[in-house]
Amino acid sequence: MNLDPPHGWTQNTSEPKTWFKRFEFDEYGKLRAFLDSLAALAEETQLHPDNIGFGRDYVNITIETAETTEENKKLADFARRLDELSKGM
Amino acid sequence: MNLDPPHGWTQNTSEPKTWFKRFEFDEYGKLRAFLDSLAALAEETQLHPDNIGFGRDYVNITIETAETTEENKKLADFARRLDELSKGM
Repeated sequence: MNLDPPHGWTQNTSEPKTWFKRFEFDEYGKLRAFLDSLAALAEETQLHPDNIGFGRDYVNITIETAETTEENKKLADFARRLDELSKGM
Repeated sequence: MNLDPPHGWTQNTSEPKTWFKRFEFDEYGKLRAFLDSLAALAEETQLHPDNIGFGRDYVNITIETAETTEENKKLADFARRLDELSKGM
């Protein structure tokens, strides 16, 4: 069972089901700081995005959703914390 | 004018022309260290891959090639240094 994606994230409903968000940064230093924070959050939560793609001014994050509502709530919380981290840069 | 890609890199000859390589890691810590080294090298050389995509055990790097042989030699040197960095992890 799936949850809707967190606000601002888009859902890809083909298999594997994923949530996606593009974050944009006006300075490369902020982008790097965001990636470092993301790594620390992944370490803390033991949740890892399926793919992270970045260039000079953007980070695209794809999170593969899970089978259970409980797991997806954790992923939604993870996604919301990424939003908060991006706002703090 | 373009150079051939460095050994181990594949060339995409459609536009924009790019060089691509997938690096694989048996530990997430090594992958993170590689990304940090890559960031330091980009800072030093002021050369930036067009896209870096990573998951838990791989880093895909796409480098857009330049118009001149001189610039492409610099990019080839950058690519070779990434190879060296990945071997040191």
